[in-house]
Amino acid sequence: MIVIFKPNASPEKVKALCARFEASGLKIHNSEGEHTHLIGLIGDTSSVDIDLVRANDIVEDVKRVSEPYKKANRKFHPADTVVDVGGHKIGGGHFTVMAGPCSVESAEQITEVARRVKASGAGLVRGGAFKPRTSPYSFQGMRAEGLTLLRKARQATGLPIVTEIMNTEHIGLFEDVDMIQVGARNMQNFELLKELGKLKTPILLKRGLSNTLEEFLMSAEYIMAGGNENVVLCERGIRTFETSMRNTLDISAIPMLKAKSHLPVVVDPSHAAGIAWMVEPLAMAAVAAGADGLMVEVHNDPPHAKSDGAQSLTPDQFDGLMEKVRGAVSFFGKELN
Amino acid sequence: MIVIFKPNASPEKVKALCARFEASGLKIHNSEGEHTHLIGLIGDTSSVDIDLVRANDIVEDVKRVSEPYKKANRKFHPADTVVDVGGHKIGGGHFTVMAGPCSVESAEQITEVARRVKASGAGLVRGGAFKPRTSPYSFQGMRAEGLTLLRKARQATGLPIVTEIMNTEHIGLFEDVDMIQVGARNMQNFELLKELGKLKTPILLKRGLSNTLEEFLMSAEYIMAGGNENVVLCERGIRTFETSMRNTLDISAIPMLKAKSHLPVVVDPSHAAGIAWMVEPLAMAAVAAGADGLMVEVHNDPPHAKSDGAQSLTPDQFDGLMEKVRGAVSFFGKELN
Amino acid sequence: MIVIFKPNASPEKVKALCARFEASGLKIHNSEGEHTHLIGLIGDTSSVDIDLVRANDIVEDVKRVSEPYKKANRKFHPADTVVDVGGHKIGGGHFTVMAGPCSVESAEQITEVARRVKASGAGLVRGGAFKPRTSPYSFQGMRAEGLTLLRKARQATGLPIVTEIMNTEHIGLFEDVDMIQVGARNMQNFELLKELGKLKTPILLKRGLSNTLEEFLMSAEYIMAGGNENVVLCERGIRTFETSMRNTLDISAIPMLKAKSHLPVVVDPSHAAGIAWMVEPLAMAAVAAGADGLMVEVHNDPPHAKSDGAQSLTPDQFDGLMEKVRGAVSFFGKELN
Amino acid sequence: MIVIFKPNASPEKVKALCARFEASGLKIHNSEGEHTHLIGLIGDTSSVDIDLVRANDIVEDVKRVSEPYKKANRKFHPADTVVDVGGHKIGGGHFTVMAGPCSVESAEQITEVARRVKASGAGLVRGGAFKPRTSPYSFQGMRAEGLTLLRKARQATGLPIVTEIMNTEHIGLFEDVDMIQVGARNMQNFELLKELGKLKTPILLKRGLSNTLEEFLMSAEYIMAGGNENVVLCERGIRTFETSMRNTLDISAIPMLKAKSHLPVVVDPSHAAGIAWMVEPLAMAAVAAGADGLMVEVHNDPPHAKSDGAQSLTPDQFDGLMEKVRGAVSFFGKELN
Repeated sequence: MIVIFKPNASPEKVKALCARFEASGLKIHNSEGEHTHLIGLIGDTSSVDIDLVRANDIVEDVKRVSEPYKKANRKFHPADTVVDVGGHKIGGGHFTVMAGPCSVESAEQITEVARRVKASGAGLVRGGAFKPRTSPYSFQGMRAEGLTLLRKARQATGLPIVTEIMNTEHIGLFEDVDMIQVGARNMQNFELLKELGKLKTPILLKRGLSNTLEEFLMSAEYIMAGGNENVVLCERGIRTFETSMRNTLDISAIPMLKAKSHLPVVVDPSHAAGIAWMVEPLAMAAVAAGADGLMVEVHNDPPHAKSDGAQSLTPDQFDGLMEKVRGAVSFFGKELN
Repeated sequence: MIVIFKPNASPEKVKALCARFEASGLKIHNSEGEHTHLIGLIGDTSSVDIDLVRANDIVEDVKRVSEPYKKANRKFHPADTVVDVGGHKIGGGHFTVMAGPCSVESAEQITEVARRVKASGAGLVRGGAFKPRTSPYSFQGMRAEGLTLLRKARQATGLPIVTEIMNTEHIGLFEDVDMIQVGARNMQNFELLKELGKLKTPILLKRGLSNTLEEFLMSAEYIMAGGNENVVLCERGIRTFETSMRNTLDISAIPMLKAKSHLPVVVDPSHAAGIAWMVEPLAMAAVAAGADGLMVEVHNDPPHAKSDGAQSLTPDQFDGLMEKVRGAVSFFGKELN
Repeated sequence: MIVIFKPNASPEKVKALCARFEASGLKIHNSEGEHTHLIGLIGDTSSVDIDLVRANDIVEDVKRVSEPYKKANRKFHPADTVVDVGGHKIGGGHFTVMAGPCSVESAEQITEVARRVKASGAGLVRGGAFKPRTSPYSFQGMRAEGLTLLRKARQATGLPIVTEIMNTEHIGLFEDVDMIQVGARNMQNFELLKELGKLKTPILLKRGLSNTLEEFLMSAEYIMAGGNENVVLCERGIRTFETSMRNTLDISAIPMLKAKSHLPVVVDPSHAAGIAWMVEPLAMAAVAAGADGLMVEVHNDPPHAKSDGAQSLTPDQFDGLMEKVRGAVSFFGKELN
Repeated sequence: MIVIFKPNASPEKVKALCARFEASGLKIHNSEGEHTHLIGLIGDTSSVDIDLVRANDIVEDVKRVSEPYKKANRKFHPADTVVDVGGHKIGGGHFTVMAGPCSVESAEQITEVARRVKASGAGLVRGGAFKPRTSPYSFQGMRAEGLTLLRKARQATGLPIVTEIMNTEHIGLFEDVDMIQVGARNMQNFELLKELGKLKTPILLKRGLSNTLEEFLMSAEYIMAGGNENVVLCERGIRTFETSMRNTLDISAIPMLKAKSHLPVVVDPSHAAGIAWMVEPLAMAAVAAGADGLMVEVHNDPPHAKSDGAQSLTPDQFDGLMEKVRGAVSFFGKELN
């Protein structure tokens, strides 16, 4: 960490601040120029609060040199993490597709879609029971009953299930869920992240719409710091100025996250654009850029879906997509499972 | 709501979709041009799901004409809402300043700061007990004990208290809190909003860092739809590309929110820039643009604050600020209380 | 185009406005509901100025239904445009790689790099003579002399050249340049676009850092409206909140631009991230998403480059990249030329 | 400037790079920790190209400590710059209002508006002759003829004129213009900035829609480095995700620019929101935040304006605005001239 002092900083105050840093075990390298006086702090600075340092009236700026995350950091864990969800591996060369409807709507719907996506090669079935909706007047999901229907679909098909949690009070209901999803709007719901850190269940952590990659990794760090290292990162589109599609897929996030962290990275091309015909080119790009998996929305009857129909594929369209995904995953040297 | 059809839409499918709209009580106005075929839906479209309509393969685009919020909408409630927090009024010409430390750190600290800000003219004392922090390694707040200390500060000074809630499980602890704050990162924590809608306590709802004003009002609508109409909107800076300050105060949000909604709007100039010396010019701008109040961070010893010291004023600095605020509020025709 | 009236709009004024629309040849479809009164304008609305309509005090909002661009619009030109640059085709299944240094620095440098990238399979050589730099104290390019050196490199290798123009006054110097590049910061330099519209030379139009796809296509429309239809669109990364890389590649722009327009789309993975090791995964993603070409920075000695060294590949690295590009272009069904 | 090395950087290469820095007159402070090795460069680093340093394969990151601008920097020029335009002062406690139509449309229109805004207290008349329009099919301005009409309005009223330049080729036409405006889309048209640096005419430099304050000041630096120090900065709204108004006024830019630079800062509340009724609250906020002037669009007949009618005030509305501006400027301790 670099601390830059103001031009007129009093030498006594600088000395006092340095003494505080040294008292907390850091070494100090002093660097004085004509216009600039700065110090470098050497040692473990992850517990130093940048804002606190910046609050000193002698400090002009503070710059972090090392990353504020440890457990998610590839520097301290060079090998790829492989997360296993009911026998399906994600990461380390293993590629998994999760597919299913945005919302669970009925036993027939979810079981039928699960059957179809399994036949096409999906490894997990997804479906929302608790639904975060912008409007209080929109369908809010089948909630606990939706989880029951997901379990039935798992029983019927053998596919592990992944579904979203919105509140710490519901954790008991998610006990036998194979993979718990944290939605984009809850990426910084820190109370929820802390509770999920106490479980062993794999977590699918979606990136917030306007969050940086460092913030994304800090949210993974919350879960890992609690003891749950089974975290899969999911890029699902960021908010930009573009209005012709819902969000903008940040394809660069895939190689950058994989360089900074050992955690697997999957991509949700359905939410990224919000448009069914764009799922295929975005899915191909995700595979080409090095993703470890995909999450795709599939609905038996998109125009009558209770949510997000515009981005859902039909089972037939998904079957066509999987044929191309299978080829591309193999071309780019990974193994679909 | 306007539905625009694709150039080659089959007339049968168009007819079927129109029949569905009519069945739900809407009237249809048809408009066919050489290159464009569209319909206007007349009636209460707040329950029509735009995504569902867009999912039809005959639909090119859907545009909303009326706002998706009702209870927060000034069209249906022309008079300003005035929210009363322990005798201090916000809105309708009444201006209130809330001040105090980012985090409650000790009984002495919060009580002393409360005394000082009261003497300077603040109407409420603020202080964080539950703290949303980006890093799991940062101070997370005194939690339940912090609430106890806030109550003591209230008892000592008579100032009503405002403090942040992060989780539905803590609602019981907030029973006698005078105003409950929802933080920016929880603006779309819909489960939390729904629970707060069941209370009567005034809610200070902070705008998310990258949310539109419509999304902000939809979150207020969540609380109001549940029955709690005591909502105060708080603009606290949005995320932009600028790196010289933490966030960018959206001053335009004040007149626009007040045009679209009858709810009071307050501004947090401390979080907006994250820099103590910028609090005064931003506070002046907020008053000039029509805000109904301010939320300002004040700490007895900013460089040793456990969080957000860089943006905190000392009690003396706050006293100087209040002198200017008092003059400006009066100049712009409002009443400080 | 849809015009929505304010709730209390005077009927006389509405009538007068409608009369003006009808006088300009448009047909009007009227639609009146309980809370909303709107009209649809049928006919060629591309000459209607939205702002002018919005300026009426009876108008609440105006929404465009059809695109404001014609010549760039795929609706009126369904077949892919193929742009030929010195025998190298871009678009319609043809894929071309343009490579070379950020700046032309010497005769040896540009000729040597041209030889190397040609040997690896590039179809065009790029090199900046006029350089747009953020700082007046940075190297500004060799200017006219740089163009001379580019011509020598072309003579030595036979590769057509592409280089950036910054000012209408320089157009004479670019007479025998094979493809003229418009940089991101000049995407809305309308005087420049108009002059380029009078030429026949192919134009490589780079997207501005924060521009929407519609604005991008409107800039192409400026060139095409002048008579030059040889426009190639180039996505080169957009500005986002991310700080770990220079820009964020908007991969979704590729399929969306190709859906809305018949113009070819190429991608610049070097500027997109500004980091040499990210060029390969982003190039692969671009091919997979349907791009018609790539623009890649290659320098014989990146650490001593006069600009943008951090993102440049060495000729050997470029050779390795081209091997993968060749495979991927073929896998995704296009032909490298 | 701080250079951070990669964990495995070869000591020889580090030595070689340091030797290069020392050869260019910089002193080096070395700082080695367990996980981090970095150096601080002491001396004038404004000529060091960050990208070039970053291109070394031993370098992990480079951070600038001092600002890259000198002439615009308040550190080296503590006193406020006061720019005088035909006797009207901007900066250093002097406040000037510039007003007039978006486009010059006829001799009567511009002279009449000039008369009216002068009577209300404006110090300069504005009017666009060359118009940057997103669409090639929109009105492009009266161009040279518009400049002639502006001169007539000046003759008739005595008000100095400010108008926008779009191209270096037009500089001759602007010889006797009192203040030359650079539009937001040309903020980084570096060839234009360089030419304007050769003049003595005051320049009104508008901030680009998505540019940082540092980039804004670097563009001012371009003009000043050429020898023209009469630069006035203009904040005119930035692009954000908000859709209910055209742009978002960055009020925080005012105090931050004035802290970093000695140049005057004016605000354009008309373009900032693009909505006439928002001009007043935004203008009040600008005055309160410390702006040195305003630029306001006034049109005799907004609904028939050839451009930007939606944001134009009528002369009567402007008169009402000026009454409030006069009061606020005086309340906040500046002098209107």
